Amino acid sequence: MAGYLDARPRVGYFYTGKSGSQLLADKVKHITVNDYQSRPVVVQQSVSVYDAICTMFLEDVGTLFVVDANNTLVGVLSRKDLLRASLGKQALESIPVSIIMTRMPNITVCKKEDLIIEVANKLIDKQIDGLPIIEEVDRGSGFEVIGRITKTNITALLVDLANDEVI
Amino acid sequence: MAGYLDARPRVGYFYTGKSGSQLLADKVKHITVNDYQSRPVVVQQSVSVYDAICTMFLEDVGTLFVVDANNTLVGVLSRKDLLRASLGKQALESIPVSIIMTRMPNITVCKKEDLIIEVANKLIDKQIDGLPIIEEVDRGSGFEVIGRITKTNITALLVDLANDEVI
Repeated sequence: MAGYLDARPRVGYFYTGKSGSQLLADKVKHITVNDYQSRPVVVQQSVSVYDAICTMFLEDVGTLFVVDANNTLVGVLSRKDLLRASLGKQALESIPVSIIMTRMPNITVCKKEDLIIEVANKLIDKQIDGLPIIEEVDRGSGFEVIGRITKTNITALLVDLANDEVI
Repeated sequence: MAGYLDARPRVGYFYTGKSGSQLLADKVKHITVNDYQSRPVVVQQSVSVYDAICTMFLEDVGTLFVVDANNTLVGVLSRKDLLRASLGKQALESIPVSIIMTRMPNITVCKKEDLIIEVANKLIDKQIDGLPIIEEVDRGSGFEVIGRITKTNITALLVDLANDEVI
């Protein structure tokens, strides 16, 4: 009965006062990033825009994460960033991604225990396609990228909700 | 009570047998494309790849629809299509979009009365970001584009569902 009815001895079932939508909201508000993530694809900051575009096609992703030699997140590359770069006159092989990427600390991030609905809100608010899922690392003030969450994951969640496949 | 309980004279309330997830599924299965669409952005098939990329930035969309002189849908351009074109050696100003676009009849389309959950399924299955919402036109066998639906619209729906803002 999933929260609609409650029972008490000698009283029987009674309505909890929650509407269907409230229960849905309660349900969605328990689903975390960890339940609906994808693997992250990272490139080094010295890589060229040309190679980054190739990596995007080879790995079939819409967002790449840029890391430094310590594997710490330093930037994010969206299809939009790469497309903007391709309008320029310079050869894409000669531009390093570090010039065109969105840099820390201007990157919107999330953690694996965050609620998926918070991420959905961020994606809509900031008009971005995907976020890195990060973990703080000991060796400094940096973050390691441990996952990726995108509008595709959110769409898959809605399909699962409608198919009644979410616990 | 949104379907959980039903009432009958002299019997009182009784449980309909539907679970919370079933009710959610029922709810989602009534939301149509018409409730969550965006306006379409179209370009002519003679436009260059360079101009199409500029239009994408100016209009702030991830998918463009290509039409002929009769305003009939002939192709779709995604950021991915334009990015692929930018890897080539040819100047983007000299390539018409008709060369690189996905052409009819290989375009996945939907109608405004379709269920949003069917669209979500198509977006996941076909690995695409958005669909044109089409209407058949009298003047031939063609379609006119009347809207656009993307993973962003689906993400917005999930946010509304969680915020209890869907009727």
